[in-house]
Amino acid sequence: MIKTISLAHGSGGLASTELIDQIFMRAFDNSFLQAHEDQAKIKLTELTQLGDRMAFSTDSYVIDPIFFPGGDIGKLAVCGTVNDLAVGGAIPLYLSCGFILEEGLPICTLQEIADSMAKTAKEAGITIVTGDTKVVPNGAVDKIFINTAGIGAIPTQINWGMAHIKEGDKIIVSGTLGDHGATILNIREKLGLIGALSSDCAPLYSLIHHLHTIDGVRAIRDATRGGVNAVLHEFMQGSGYGMKIIESELPLQSTVRGLCELLGLDPLNFANEGKVVIVVSPECELQVLQSLHRHPLGINAKSIGEVVTKRNVTLQGLYGIERLLDLPHNEPLPRIC
Amino acid sequence: MIKTISLAHGSGGLASTELIDQIFMRAFDNSFLQAHEDQAKIKLTELTQLGDRMAFSTDSYVIDPIFFPGGDIGKLAVCGTVNDLAVGGAIPLYLSCGFILEEGLPICTLQEIADSMAKTAKEAGITIVTGDTKVVPNGAVDKIFINTAGIGAIPTQINWGMAHIKEGDKIIVSGTLGDHGATILNIREKLGLIGALSSDCAPLYSLIHHLHTIDGVRAIRDATRGGVNAVLHEFMQGSGYGMKIIESELPLQSTVRGLCELLGLDPLNFANEGKVVIVVSPECELQVLQSLHRHPLGINAKSIGEVVTKRNVTLQGLYGIERLLDLPHNEPLPRIC
Repeated sequence: MIKTISLAHGSGGLASTELIDQIFMRAFDNSFLQAHEDQAKIKLTELTQLGDRMAFSTDSYVIDPIFFPGGDIGKLAVCGTVNDLAVGGAIPLYLSCGFILEEGLPICTLQEIADSMAKTAKEAGITIVTGDTKVVPNGAVDKIFINTAGIGAIPTQINWGMAHIKEGDKIIVSGTLGDHGATILNIREKLGLIGALSSDCAPLYSLIHHLHTIDGVRAIRDATRGGVNAVLHEFMQGSGYGMKIIESELPLQSTVRGLCELLGLDPLNFANEGKVVIVVSPECELQVLQSLHRHPLGINAKSIGEVVTKRNVTLQGLYGIERLLDLPHNEPLPRIC
Repeated sequence: MIKTISLAHGSGGLASTELIDQIFMRAFDNSFLQAHEDQAKIKLTELTQLGDRMAFSTDSYVIDPIFFPGGDIGKLAVCGTVNDLAVGGAIPLYLSCGFILEEGLPICTLQEIADSMAKTAKEAGITIVTGDTKVVPNGAVDKIFINTAGIGAIPTQINWGMAHIKEGDKIIVSGTLGDHGATILNIREKLGLIGALSSDCAPLYSLIHHLHTIDGVRAIRDATRGGVNAVLHEFMQGSGYGMKIIESELPLQSTVRGLCELLGLDPLNFANEGKVVIVVSPECELQVLQSLHRHPLGINAKSIGEVVTKRNVTLQGLYGIERLLDLPHNEPLPRIC
């Protein structure tokens, strides 16, 4: 018989304590959790020795399916928040996680997800210091949702942000586009592209931290929901400048390109979970690209365009014709992350 | 026609941006959110000038119903995390919030919840600095779940924690017990006690901070899920001592007492959302009680027992007979918070 999550596991009674001990304490074990208090207590010197500011970010993860080629909801929940800290220039340090579980979820499934989170957190150098578990009756949530909130320290010399973007700056992507979105689309819509697609879900701090010492990095964003297109629109809003990219420069896996052509979809709108868009000064473009290429997660990094005066987002097509890239009203795929 | 949440509102496209601007930016407006970055950036001096440690805590809120006498899921989501920071001795400062919305949720409902969060955050002196919104298809979540994570600064002189509890210490509760649990039970089970019950949901920092200057406060916990009984068991686990309380000393509203007698339930197991259990040295007991009594949220504070050698949790009944208070396997009511 498969053991499953029951309402008792979320009630604050004995069953809750047992679940926390058996699953979460075992997977995430550290001195913060061992204190068994309602809050983690962190010495501020742990942060002040690394920087002068703290980054704080949160995301909830509701992806369907919860396991997919290249990852699972647990890995995603760690990577997503680690990356939101890293793109702000922060060194990711501490993570909270809140689980909402559906009554009836197999305990071995939760175990697998927790183990995946622990593995990813270790890889990313972040510690899961506090958490919460709720269980809701069957039907009130679909299997498992996870929220993570993260804290990082921003080194004093780093000051990245959209407000620093200038005309003439270069736009770089750290690798092939749309892999995560295409992978989920392929599974969910049963398109049958077996084995060919895998999510790019990865913690990116180890890639990004090499950029800390390069002068001229203006702003970085991870291109998740809404894809590179959404990021370019945010950069436009946040800087007051336009973003012009070149179609022939976009790094795309052939399977993703094929899937998009087949369905008439634009990979620029597809979610990524291990790619960033970086705006840099023209002077440091080469140095940034070289730094990215030296890292396994950045080998396909490319310059894809530049910042222009005219305040819109455009794509120069294969025959040189420039067209407006509108921000779609919505993305075709719900629960992508 | 009532406007409702659609999948597009969570897609990262134009509809997402509009929802964030219209609901959340309007309600929570501050310079952190105005930066429109993926992470809030906070100067560490904002924390170091207040203390030497940071408290970090998270909770997800899945309560059903989302509006109840004395509060709503938004108020609860702010109070719960504020209180988890405050009981650790922290000054609550920054809050993240992650919304998971069901397709079809009326936008006016979300507006009301966001306004309630904004009002409560203002009252509690905490700033909502970063957030996330996901929308899932109808049926994948019940209306709305909220996660909050909070950051506070712990003043240097404060060192509260279960490890400091000693034999002979006094156990104090800050007010009447079980009001939140009884209120939700009354509504959910349609018990018909109209107008008589109201949740005690409240941010408690303004009450707790008066204890910062009292020497002899050992540990504080808010008695939420699992009630005072669960807290006493945690204190036992965390200190290695037993907890003995006196039934005749328990502050109870007559309606809650009546409801418990009617149903054969123990108010010690009922959830509270605005009450704390405090362990203090015998020397400062009176001073702590006086401090609590001066605050509107502490007027019914009482000493209810003491810390003993024998490592269990007991209740001395009305006729002087002592019985063991076991930690129940579960609480009768799911989705209480």
